[in-house]
Amino acid sequence: MYTGKNILVGQSGGPTAVINASLAGVLSAARQAGIGKIYGMRYGLQGLLEGKIIDLEPLTSEKNLLLLQKTPAAYLGSCRVKLPKIEDKAEVYEALFAFLMERDIGAVFYIGGNDSMDAARKLSAYAARVSSPIRFIGVPKTIDNDMACTDHTPGFGSAARYIACVTREVVQDALVYDQKRITIMEIMGRDAGWLTGAAALAWGANHIGPDFIYLPETPLDLDEFCERAVERQRTRRSLVIAVSEGVRATSGHYVCEATAMNPDYQDAFGHRDISGTARALCELLALRCGCKARAVEVNVLQRCAAHYTAATDVREAFAVGEAAVRAAMAGHTGVMPAFERIGSDPYACRIVLRNLGDIANAVRHVPLEWIKPGGAGLTDEFLQYVRPLADMENDEEGLPALP
Amino acid sequence: MYTGKNILVGQSGGPTAVINASLAGVLSAARQAGIGKIYGMRYGLQGLLEGKIIDLEPLTSEKNLLLLQKTPAAYLGSCRVKLPKIEDKAEVYEALFAFLMERDIGAVFYIGGNDSMDAARKLSAYAARVSSPIRFIGVPKTIDNDMACTDHTPGFGSAARYIACVTREVVQDALVYDQKRITIMEIMGRDAGWLTGAAALAWGANHIGPDFIYLPETPLDLDEFCERAVERQRTRRSLVIAVSEGVRATSGHYVCEATAMNPDYQDAFGHRDISGTARALCELLALRCGCKARAVEVNVLQRCAAHYTAATDVREAFAVGEAAVRAAMAGHTGVMPAFERIGSDPYACRIVLRNLGDIANAVRHVPLEWIKPGGAGLTDEFLQYVRPLADMENDEEGLPALP
Repeated sequence: MYTGKNILVGQSGGPTAVINASLAGVLSAARQAGIGKIYGMRYGLQGLLEGKIIDLEPLTSEKNLLLLQKTPAAYLGSCRVKLPKIEDKAEVYEALFAFLMERDIGAVFYIGGNDSMDAARKLSAYAARVSSPIRFIGVPKTIDNDMACTDHTPGFGSAARYIACVTREVVQDALVYDQKRITIMEIMGRDAGWLTGAAALAWGANHIGPDFIYLPETPLDLDEFCERAVERQRTRRSLVIAVSEGVRATSGHYVCEATAMNPDYQDAFGHRDISGTARALCELLALRCGCKARAVEVNVLQRCAAHYTAATDVREAFAVGEAAVRAAMAGHTGVMPAFERIGSDPYACRIVLRNLGDIANAVRHVPLEWIKPGGAGLTDEFLQYVRPLADMENDEEGLPALP
Repeated sequence: MYTGKNILVGQSGGPTAVINASLAGVLSAARQAGIGKIYGMRYGLQGLLEGKIIDLEPLTSEKNLLLLQKTPAAYLGSCRVKLPKIEDKAEVYEALFAFLMERDIGAVFYIGGNDSMDAARKLSAYAARVSSPIRFIGVPKTIDNDMACTDHTPGFGSAARYIACVTREVVQDALVYDQKRITIMEIMGRDAGWLTGAAALAWGANHIGPDFIYLPETPLDLDEFCERAVERQRTRRSLVIAVSEGVRATSGHYVCEATAMNPDYQDAFGHRDISGTARALCELLALRCGCKARAVEVNVLQRCAAHYTAATDVREAFAVGEAAVRAAMAGHTGVMPAFERIGSDPYACRIVLRNLGDIANAVRHVPLEWIKPGGAGLTDEFLQYVRPLADMENDEEGLPALP
């Protein structure tokens, strides 16, 4: 059915440590299926709109597929472009489809997060409207893990493993001096606190971990926040606090708004620049606690740490790429391979197809009942959910803290 | 000769990923030598002055010595205390020596950087003055690698390996969007640029790496800095620049002074708070280049990344701990085991003893002839020097950059 047809694959949104493993999965399955040419978009839809596609044949060698799985960030390049509504600017879609037909493209695979799934949804909706046979399949990725209709997203497990590891290291570092001090770690997550919650994994056999964890799901009362820190410092002199970059005060404003370098900046999707949360909270606590306060912005390091991935995550990222190709071969369009969890002990997931219309623009939050009040951490349910994704079922033994 | 004598070991200054391996080396050699009790200082000299010492017997089991080598930060706790001059406050020394004699301490091992070696030097000088038989041996550690009389310091190799790795990952991340943008990485190093220079190791088989590298050894002309960035952006839209936190403008001021949260803060050694260098440069370049500029402060992560150490570094950190004990057993005092390089290809170093008086308070800079002008990177001599320390003789092959 696909004989003679070509395919096109692109990446979109923020990179992850394993997004290239999904690309490798698409390439591997396509090569095995005997598909014609395999094209890649340079810089996602933005590049496609400018006609920037390249032949990916050289990437499909055994050696390059292996290298690709170890390479962080989006190898094809990415973008943050929002497609217009079809009824507002049909000519954009007409031009795109003409371009795809000219190159005999039978299926398009778009690897990305919520905004990217919305783009894939719009394209498949336009295909239905004009009765185009071109199939559009989404491939999930986001370290934020905030996608609807799936147990989790590729990219999250590795980022969670990395956050657990560096949180433990930062806590060890913070305990070194016999001094009052505050360390605030800023972790990515605009609306959902899945990744910041992974800081709770730092608590292990050696009984050290972050003192407080604050997610965007619950508003932050700044007075209570300070009081809790002052109270805790009576028994623990050096505190470590993990916060999502997207934490909001009870006023509804982002905590970082007072100190943001570009408070008015918005990207194509209307997202604000929300860095500086830890720094703002440090300024507050340094005054209230009367001690040095240090912000540790984990920054892009948490989404590109290919040197410390979760093997489960790499394998699953590859698998959704393969599943996307199989879905297109089976005649599906407007869908995304997603994970359905069968069990956590032992961990098992199966891949199912979900409709892009149910996924696009939805945000999946950490359930409120998994968040302990007052920044006291995450529940066992959360930890059981995230541990197998981060390859942390069997946590290493560590040295006990000294008296 | 040491029969019945006890020893005391402490850690001082900023932590590293392998400082505990040196502690393990001291413990292992002391146990083998049949030394009496092994005491540890809690929080270095500060703890010792307050009488806080603990019995380290439980740490000397086979299992705990192995765990200790994998644990980042200073397990015993550290401090930043400056001992007074003997002639100014002899009573401090009298009390300390009385405390040591009471516990029948025959030798004291102090693991630290330049300031710590100065403390060990003062203590051994006092011992000579009062004809005390107590021996004082320094054990080198610092990620800064700025210690005199040694080829390199334990802690540097692992930090350099980590910087090479994250720089490569950050560059991959920065190349993802088809946009003008600037990323400035801030790397530790107040006076010496060894660790920032390690960012040059990111350049490997896949031909991506940082565009500019600026060390504290050469003053930064801010106008030229901006002009070079504007010029480079004509051909490369997304620039990555690595800077030492301690870079100074041609005026002699730290670049960060304009934006420092605590510009007047000084620690016991008169060191200023110099974070914020990358942020200050980002503000400058965002205006001059007319694009988004992002600061990535690698921060404490670079000194506590036990998950990504160099095996050579761990081995050598352990070896200087052992050598320190052997030196004390042989009757030495006022010395530090140091590295003398025999060759780089293949890499080989031998351990030699150096006098603390020649080490304390000196700073070893990157030779100016190893620094290419205008932030253009480091020479092959520098790379040959640092590669074996970071376990990077055989660099992995990577995917070539796309057209």
